Amino acid sequence: MSRFSISISTYNRRIERVRKILESKNYDALILFSPIRIFYLTGYKVLPTERPIALIIPVKDELTLFVPKLEEEHSKFRVPHIKRRIVYFEYPGVKHPMKIFAKAVEEMKLHDKNLASDAPGYPGIMGYRGPKLSEILPKARITIAPEIIDDMRLIKDEEEIKLLKESAKWTNLAHRLLQDYTAPGLIETEIAMRASYEASVAMIKALGPEYDPGTPLPARAVFRGQIGKYSAYPHMLAGSMIIKEGDVLVTGAGANVGGYSAELERTMIVGKPNEKQEKYFNIMVKAQQAALNAFKPGIKACEVNKAAFKVFKEEGVPMEYVLHRVGHGIGLEGHEPPWIEDGDETILKPGMVFSCEPGIYIPGFAGFRHSDTVVITEDGVEVITYYPRNLEELIIPT
Amino acid sequence: MSRFSISISTYNRRIERVRKILESKNYDALILFSPIRIFYLTGYKVLPTERPIALIIPVKDELTLFVPKLEEEHSKFRVPHIKRRIVYFEYPGVKHPMKIFAKAVEEMKLHDKNLASDAPGYPGIMGYRGPKLSEILPKARITIAPEIIDDMRLIKDEEEIKLLKESAKWTNLAHRLLQDYTAPGLIETEIAMRASYEASVAMIKALGPEYDPGTPLPARAVFRGQIGKYSAYPHMLAGSMIIKEGDVLVTGAGANVGGYSAELERTMIVGKPNEKQEKYFNIMVKAQQAALNAFKPGIKACEVNKAAFKVFKEEGVPMEYVLHRVGHGIGLEGHEPPWIEDGDETILKPGMVFSCEPGIYIPGFAGFRHSDTVVITEDGVEVITYYPRNLEELIIPT
Repeated sequence: MSRFSISISTYNRRIERVRKILESKNYDALILFSPIRIFYLTGYKVLPTERPIALIIPVKDELTLFVPKLEEEHSKFRVPHIKRRIVYFEYPGVKHPMKIFAKAVEEMKLHDKNLASDAPGYPGIMGYRGPKLSEILPKARITIAPEIIDDMRLIKDEEEIKLLKESAKWTNLAHRLLQDYTAPGLIETEIAMRASYEASVAMIKALGPEYDPGTPLPARAVFRGQIGKYSAYPHMLAGSMIIKEGDVLVTGAGANVGGYSAELERTMIVGKPNEKQEKYFNIMVKAQQAALNAFKPGIKACEVNKAAFKVFKEEGVPMEYVLHRVGHGIGLEGHEPPWIEDGDETILKPGMVFSCEPGIYIPGFAGFRHSDTVVITEDGVEVITYYPRNLEELIIPT
Repeated sequence: MSRFSISISTYNRRIERVRKILESKNYDALILFSPIRIFYLTGYKVLPTERPIALIIPVKDELTLFVPKLEEEHSKFRVPHIKRRIVYFEYPGVKHPMKIFAKAVEEMKLHDKNLASDAPGYPGIMGYRGPKLSEILPKARITIAPEIIDDMRLIKDEEEIKLLKESAKWTNLAHRLLQDYTAPGLIETEIAMRASYEASVAMIKALGPEYDPGTPLPARAVFRGQIGKYSAYPHMLAGSMIIKEGDVLVTGAGANVGGYSAELERTMIVGKPNEKQEKYFNIMVKAQQAALNAFKPGIKACEVNKAAFKVFKEEGVPMEYVLHRVGHGIGLEGHEPPWIEDGDETILKPGMVFSCEPGIYIPGFAGFRHSDTVVITEDGVEVITYYPRNLEELIIPT
């Protein structure tokens, strides 16, 4: 069952690696509250709510999952390789769930040990309130160390890259359909959700029962309101804008495969572009190409940012039109470190995955941004999204 | 522009109320980091990312929004009633955004004052790392007080209830289409996303340009994998299950209107129900009715939970089949306090809104749950979702 998900042997390898890190730092156990970090180590996907969950990774004992009763049987079905569970009935509970957690930690004889955790306590999702670990485990020495897992996540392994490449295919389909269906007079959602629906159904049918989408709409291509002059707002988040001739459109697409999604965004123009549209479109593509050329192992993340911004400067784009950095890490989250930004001096290494998306946004006129997903290789970079980037192929006929 | 959103005068009233609370508690300002709490006070909807945002509400000075540059123009367009902005370029930044924030707080002469905040710092969304308020404002006296806003959110006002009732209509449409399109042999997503797509487009066209969906799929009805024996897992989260004759299906539907969504869930059966299916379906409906009858102002939240669980006990349903409490508050979040659970002694008051959804889950067989949205009134309860609850109307013909 690992054609479209991370294999159990990889999860086990990750757990062993965590145990070695814990041992080297003299921790007796790691407690994780973040659903994403728990997924990264185990493949257990849970709907994050106010009901606290946790994973305990003792150095010398079995993995233990802390879940509400509604996840007891489901988690046995999903992650049968985790044998031990601490189960509480509900939140808020006559007795607070974290008190039940504390008692179980005591029974595991970890309550007075050296513990690492990814957060002071379960985060305040959906109105959750609860004590910190330090309050319920007063005899423990607790260190907040999210980096134990997050540093591992920076470099994607072969399986992760394979999932991202599979994602890129369905992302491409969703975006292709989005472009095909785009026409003046339509509401963005009519186009975007028709494309996303068809791409999702095709994806589910093509990948078959081994594929677990985990969401009803695994492939999606959308406009998010970036239509006409509103394309100048990178996070417009509308849904009801009407496409018209002359509009610049900025899209976004992705597809979930085993928890991973590539990122693909394009600038499209409805009808014949005018001179100003063409000018900024071409500068944007040139800046993106400069960034794509700059990616390679051994350089700093900020150097890629500078490579793209240098094009903006040379082409006379005022910095007030530049609203964001060139890119971000991608993996289990849509944005994750490292950041392709002036303030990030992380050295790029093979296996790191980034978006590459320098943008230009002219208030009251339009925004211009392509985004592609790239993987740092041993000697350069591989662009895993492969949708056309040139203006001719991104014009919507009218 | 307030037909399908909260009016500016209501936002202003909420701000004034906050200022009075702050004054009464001798705070000089409140700092909010939660995007949901900021939306509640201002109507400003932002895509939460690793780029920190905040709202400062000084007792005697203007509202001030702290945003990344990519939100500067967008926030002026969305919330023009907020005149003051602190803007930083990017995250992580050559200078950390929270240092820029601290400097602005100093310029506002709040850095050595009595401050309340809803969190110790901006939360760790998408890998965000940053200092706590107490670290960047060492001279301030800082109290973490999320309850200043959250207590206000417990009681919904007339405008909020109007939006929830508008939501219930489109939720009903999405669910009706879901039921209409359900047939053996189809993959859940084929049905769910067709229904959601059509309901969303109808909703956007019916409500017109005054309606801002804020998402490409504002109305949705889904199965979330709760199909056949997997209906026994309340949070199955699949997307690729195939419907077959004899299956019990558990659905979920909602529709976003001005940030609010009703909750509607139904148990449906494909073809003629067998005796065991009918038995548990009917007990579930009886328990839901007992809870609906119990809701009224002046009683404790836990009493409604007990009313439904009493039916389970009387009907001989083993408690191992009961995986969760009877309900939760609903408003800007899908789950929010108070909780209809044994551990919540909150006194119900007019204007509180809840889901009502006692469930029965039999491992390896099926799950049974309806969910309706209710508003506590002056003398009882109003059920604002209105989809059929009886078995006859929830049978899918084969």
